[in-house]
Amino acid sequence: MKLIIQRDRLVQSVQDVMKAVSSRTTIPILTGIKIAATEKGVTLTGSDSDISIESSIPKEEDGDELAEIIESGAIVLQARFFSEIVKKLPTDTVVIEVQNHLQTVIRSGKSEFNLHGLDAEEYPHLPQIKEENVFRISADLLKMMIRQTVFAVSTSETRPILTGVNWKIEDRELTCIATDSHRLALRKAQIETESNESYNVVIPGKSLNELSKILDDSNDPIDIVITENQVLFKAKHLLFFSRLLEGNYPDTSRLIPTDSKTDVVVNIKEFLQAIDRAALLARDDRNNVVKFSTFENQLIEISSNTPEIGKVIEEVQAQSIDGEDLKISFSAKYMIDALKTLDGTEIKVSFTGAMRPFLIRPINDDSILQLILPVRTY
Amino acid sequence: MKLIIQRDRLVQSVQDVMKAVSSRTTIPILTGIKIAATEKGVTLTGSDSDISIESSIPKEEDGDELAEIIESGAIVLQARFFSEIVKKLPTDTVVIEVQNHLQTVIRSGKSEFNLHGLDAEEYPHLPQIKEENVFRISADLLKMMIRQTVFAVSTSETRPILTGVNWKIEDRELTCIATDSHRLALRKAQIETESNESYNVVIPGKSLNELSKILDDSNDPIDIVITENQVLFKAKHLLFFSRLLEGNYPDTSRLIPTDSKTDVVVNIKEFLQAIDRAALLARDDRNNVVKFSTFENQLIEISSNTPEIGKVIEEVQAQSIDGEDLKISFSAKYMIDALKTLDGTEIKVSFTGAMRPFLIRPINDDSILQLILPVRTY
Repeated sequence: MKLIIQRDRLVQSVQDVMKAVSSRTTIPILTGIKIAATEKGVTLTGSDSDISIESSIPKEEDGDELAEIIESGAIVLQARFFSEIVKKLPTDTVVIEVQNHLQTVIRSGKSEFNLHGLDAEEYPHLPQIKEENVFRISADLLKMMIRQTVFAVSTSETRPILTGVNWKIEDRELTCIATDSHRLALRKAQIETESNESYNVVIPGKSLNELSKILDDSNDPIDIVITENQVLFKAKHLLFFSRLLEGNYPDTSRLIPTDSKTDVVVNIKEFLQAIDRAALLARDDRNNVVKFSTFENQLIEISSNTPEIGKVIEEVQAQSIDGEDLKISFSAKYMIDALKTLDGTEIKVSFTGAMRPFLIRPINDDSILQLILPVRTY
Repeated sequence: MKLIIQRDRLVQSVQDVMKAVSSRTTIPILTGIKIAATEKGVTLTGSDSDISIESSIPKEEDGDELAEIIESGAIVLQARFFSEIVKKLPTDTVVIEVQNHLQTVIRSGKSEFNLHGLDAEEYPHLPQIKEENVFRISADLLKMMIRQTVFAVSTSETRPILTGVNWKIEDRELTCIATDSHRLALRKAQIETESNESYNVVIPGKSLNELSKILDDSNDPIDIVITENQVLFKAKHLLFFSRLLEGNYPDTSRLIPTDSKTDVVVNIKEFLQAIDRAALLARDDRNNVVKFSTFENQLIEISSNTPEIGKVIEEVQAQSIDGEDLKISFSAKYMIDALKTLDGTEIKVSFTGAMRPFLIRPINDDSILQLILPVRTY
């Protein structure tokens, strides 16, 4: 293999595929990045066997020459060293050449690295996915849907299925749901597709987080293909594979209350900041539990108290409070996480009593909801 | 005590005095910040008994009212909580009021905190320092001198005196020296003073690092007073006290070679980047040792080699190489640290053989020198 490649493009591709490389893998070859040169260009691959990422650099793009392939071939280079090296190379182009015995020379200006490569034949093959039933979504919407749900997955391995986000596709609508059994996040959106297949799969939260880091905030289309045990996200020059979690995701629909006894409409920023301050004096070991009470004249009070330190009372003027008076306690952390996913200036919080889960939603937008279970202190 | 104070000014002062507050102190009251209100204004104090910082907020400055003192007095509040609270308060002004039993109310807009205070009478008094023999230096020069020397102090407690920077004042010249016995940094500057006293003291590296973080990059004058066991730095509205290290600093003057056998003049940026790359394949456990060799035609080669991974060779075109040919090995980390303290485009490296310490200096500037001991590999 011998090729000449634009350094900046190489650095970007290496950075993308590094998201899948784990230093803690038990499979030695997966500590490496596979570099393959063909007549089409260069592809880099990284994998930790849960996630695999392939990034392509074409020979030419928009009239610019990105890579010149002098000899086709492939090699695997230690990811940690290779990524550090390419970032620091002195000139705009880089020569990569595999010599005898997998010895690989990386040359840039007056800098010459000589790395021991690994045999690319031993690198695992990426899943072969038939591209039937493709559905399509823009990168920015996909990133938004991930951000609005993935924070609510469970971090505990006691119920592994809850460490993933449940993706359901039915009637050209994608619904993403995550819950750790103390809170739930749900987001829906229309998708483009030519098929009418239904899906119900669970994608590991970690995979979605890594995917979100790689995607641009553009409205470029992302093609998504779901198989029995894999999902593939296809962007321009990028393939992102993730395994799916095995098992059945719990039916969450009956968790979501359909009626409410107290509805509060409040400015999201004022509410968030008041809770953030109240959380300062809430004990860490109870997930920063704060108390929330409604009063006359659309007043809300948020308070917390740590006997050794002191207490705090925050007043917030609500837009409206309808229904029964309420005193309820909840995790300030969960509330802050939920509020940060919501856009707009006002939100509606709908309670069905101090012991029941409550809903947080934007006004006039039912594509997203956040649900939180209260803490029993009153 | 009752006062009304500008929040932003309070936040800045709290941030400054927090630099001296340690959460690991064994003296409970030092986990707090002392707040004192007098007819002049408000002073905040933080201390870990090695460093003490006092920040003042006058009642008025440049015609702006910064603080209104309604009742004089003092209180000590838990630093960690108080600093988090003031940062997040909603309005531009803050009321702080001590009520019965040291209960302290902090009020801002519709936010009300109630903290248990500690008795300010129990807070240790700051050192009383007679302001004789003041010398003066601008804040930016002081920060520069700290930055150019403090990185070279020892991090090991086996010789505690080497964890400090040796400050010597003689004939209106300040010399700062730091060494960890593998390298040495020296910086000199003229200072303003009305006395002709000589000093030879050792200031803890940690104190100088914290001082450097607080000082602005301005040419405001800093007054410095040295006593037997303390040093005081006085800026506008700020007092910074540090204890001095006890013991005699080693005489470093005989370490510094006065002659040289090989002199290399090289572009600092090219040299730094080549060493940075060569260090990528140098073993971590040997402080990233790289090899340096001179060749004909003003060529320098920097190389390193880790048998399991690979090797790297960097060529740098020097401005000039005078004297004997040389092969020498040194720590890339020490060289990078030293080069980063030097300004200008070219530096001169003066060697006296592969086994002797060598010097790195800017061209035509003898106010600073960096010395590194080589590693014996050739």
